[in-house]
Amino acid sequence: MNNFTYYAPTKVFFGKDTHKNVGEIIKKYGYKKIMMQYGKSSIKKNGLYDEIMASLKENEIEVVEMGGVEANPKLSFVRDAVKVAKENRVEMILAVGGGSVLDSSKATACGAKVDFDVWEFSSHKNTPIDALPVGCVLTIAAAGSEMSSSAVITDIDNNMKRGFNSDFNRCKFAICNPEITYTVSKYQTACGIVDIMAHTMERYFINCEPTELTDRIAEGLLKTVVNSGKVLMENPSDYDARANVMWASSLSHNDLTGCGRENALPVHQLEHALSGEFDNVAHGAGLSVLFPAWAKYVYKEKPERFAQFARNVFDIDEKNDIEAAKLGISEMEKFFAFLEMPLSLREFGIGRESIERLSELCTFGKTRSIKTYIDLDFEKVKEIFESCY
Amino acid sequence: MNNFTYYAPTKVFFGKDTHKNVGEIIKKYGYKKIMMQYGKSSIKKNGLYDEIMASLKENEIEVVEMGGVEANPKLSFVRDAVKVAKENRVEMILAVGGGSVLDSSKATACGAKVDFDVWEFSSHKNTPIDALPVGCVLTIAAAGSEMSSSAVITDIDNNMKRGFNSDFNRCKFAICNPEITYTVSKYQTACGIVDIMAHTMERYFINCEPTELTDRIAEGLLKTVVNSGKVLMENPSDYDARANVMWASSLSHNDLTGCGRENALPVHQLEHALSGEFDNVAHGAGLSVLFPAWAKYVYKEKPERFAQFARNVFDIDEKNDIEAAKLGISEMEKFFAFLEMPLSLREFGIGRESIERLSELCTFGKTRSIKTYIDLDFEKVKEIFESCY
Repeated sequence: MNNFTYYAPTKVFFGKDTHKNVGEIIKKYGYKKIMMQYGKSSIKKNGLYDEIMASLKENEIEVVEMGGVEANPKLSFVRDAVKVAKENRVEMILAVGGGSVLDSSKATACGAKVDFDVWEFSSHKNTPIDALPVGCVLTIAAAGSEMSSSAVITDIDNNMKRGFNSDFNRCKFAICNPEITYTVSKYQTACGIVDIMAHTMERYFINCEPTELTDRIAEGLLKTVVNSGKVLMENPSDYDARANVMWASSLSHNDLTGCGRENALPVHQLEHALSGEFDNVAHGAGLSVLFPAWAKYVYKEKPERFAQFARNVFDIDEKNDIEAAKLGISEMEKFFAFLEMPLSLREFGIGRESIERLSELCTFGKTRSIKTYIDLDFEKVKEIFESCY
Repeated sequence: MNNFTYYAPTKVFFGKDTHKNVGEIIKKYGYKKIMMQYGKSSIKKNGLYDEIMASLKENEIEVVEMGGVEANPKLSFVRDAVKVAKENRVEMILAVGGGSVLDSSKATACGAKVDFDVWEFSSHKNTPIDALPVGCVLTIAAAGSEMSSSAVITDIDNNMKRGFNSDFNRCKFAICNPEITYTVSKYQTACGIVDIMAHTMERYFINCEPTELTDRIAEGLLKTVVNSGKVLMENPSDYDARANVMWASSLSHNDLTGCGRENALPVHQLEHALSGEFDNVAHGAGLSVLFPAWAKYVYKEKPERFAQFARNVFDIDEKNDIEAAKLGISEMEKFFAFLEMPLSLREFGIGRESIERLSELCTFGKTRSIKTYIDLDFEKVKEIFESCY
């Protein structure tokens, strides 16, 4: 087991009706003036907006609204939000939404404490030294951003989707009511499930010393998510399945499933190039294409690991490691297909002519390779993208 | 899944040599004057004391020492420590030790902020509203106190061992170096393993709605601890096994394995009476006698749950729930016996004449029953103690 630091200070309020306490929770922390970020109109249509506003009003919280966060949240929006946050001297940021709203809010919170451009965090020119506190009402189980240290934003002018990690990106609190996710579409639910699995599997498939406890937790999480995913495709209002997936989303990305292991997220690196370049690619759908492709490209380097995954997550009864590994990846693909997730770049309407560009983006113009069982340089990244047809 | 609040803000520094950074870590938090609590002479003998003092000195941390914390930490010691902490205006408390030193430090930290007697927390007459921050260098994997919200102290004059829970009892940081535990005796290692398992199983065997993810995490943790326990009885210096057990100790009592479930800890209630009354009973050893006894007393109320435990922790291949449940409890006993832990009160030299007194202590003089699958009133508690012969 490698040395590690584990820090997951987010206070999670989980369960039915918890979002109705948002004003009370914020008041207890002592914040009186907040910025609320959210996406498009869905929270106004389904009544969530009104319920949250009622709770904030009842607790005399002043709210500066920043609605309109888009999927793959945009740098330009964050820059505006930073300006508004500073002008209004808000004391915290409440994100009402999913990973995009959260990441936008986190970047805003870091940006509000500095005088330079917020993109300098994403370009790793600067690191946060302070941030406004961020809280959230989660509306979708997916990115795990509610407990993670990462924030990913997109500079649309330069087609760059980049993340930065910092403990200042960890939410102060997260309100997670699985019922709110009943109305999340089948497609978005599936995207979320793939993202949760990817966060867990990326930490699982890494070169390192044995980490038995972390392995068991990761496998248990994956098994649960697969089971719950099967239930949700039939019955999107199954409370326990929604709750399992929502709690798994938080645990998949709060580092619990990576304790004692290296941290690399290679497939996320590939995917960020993809959905950074093509705005019609949802993050989870991109991962659904890329994860099996990556796995097939690397599994022979560590067949025993992929075999363990196959046996403990998909109950594969096969003694030969290479065969078990192949069967495990095949089960993963079958499950993604069952979720009606794409398994090929063609399904996004992306032609082979884009491979060169995607591979360049991914390797920062051939200047870096991505660490994994095999170091993925430009040529190898290209081969993986080519295998996605 | 029940609603729950999850809050585990402790920053964990885990791995080899991490204790040597204690001064640097404390300095980063900005504390300059601390109280250090520790047990008897062992940390002076094995060099840990010197290494910690060197790091504190190097980082110019002023230290007020309170050595001599005993097993089942004593109220009188805590009262003294509160007085010293106030007089010296220490800014934080560093616990160097195991559960006893931690609980003593936590109680001191809460007591230092109030004018009334610290026992009022244990007697539930008052609840903490503030506390000094507590950090620790853990020297034994057992109680999970490094991430838990509980502190248990003993009023020896009145033979009462009582705990209180508060988020103020959660450590700010925990330094966990598995190598430090190489020298923990076989007996104490075994006691720790039983305690870790008990914390997990107490949360597992509770009436409630399905919690698939929490179940899988709990089962994975138990399985890991059983495997690592087997390794450690042969080779006490196996790093990975020590690391698994140490990390399991933290996760077994930071509420992760209880998310979405009720919280009762019935067997701990029974055990607190036992080791509160008999100072020669180590907490883990007491649990080793009482857990199987309790399980045999209640399993018929929920055989499917005990059967699931048997199948997923001990790989029992038996379809009939009652039979599987019995085999699971039997495997638990066999494992405790393998650890050379007691399975009878006789092994402590405690005679049957003590049962009445123990049952009274446990039910606070017949004024309460202990919630579990069956509510345990005085008579039922007596029956469980009687079955421990």
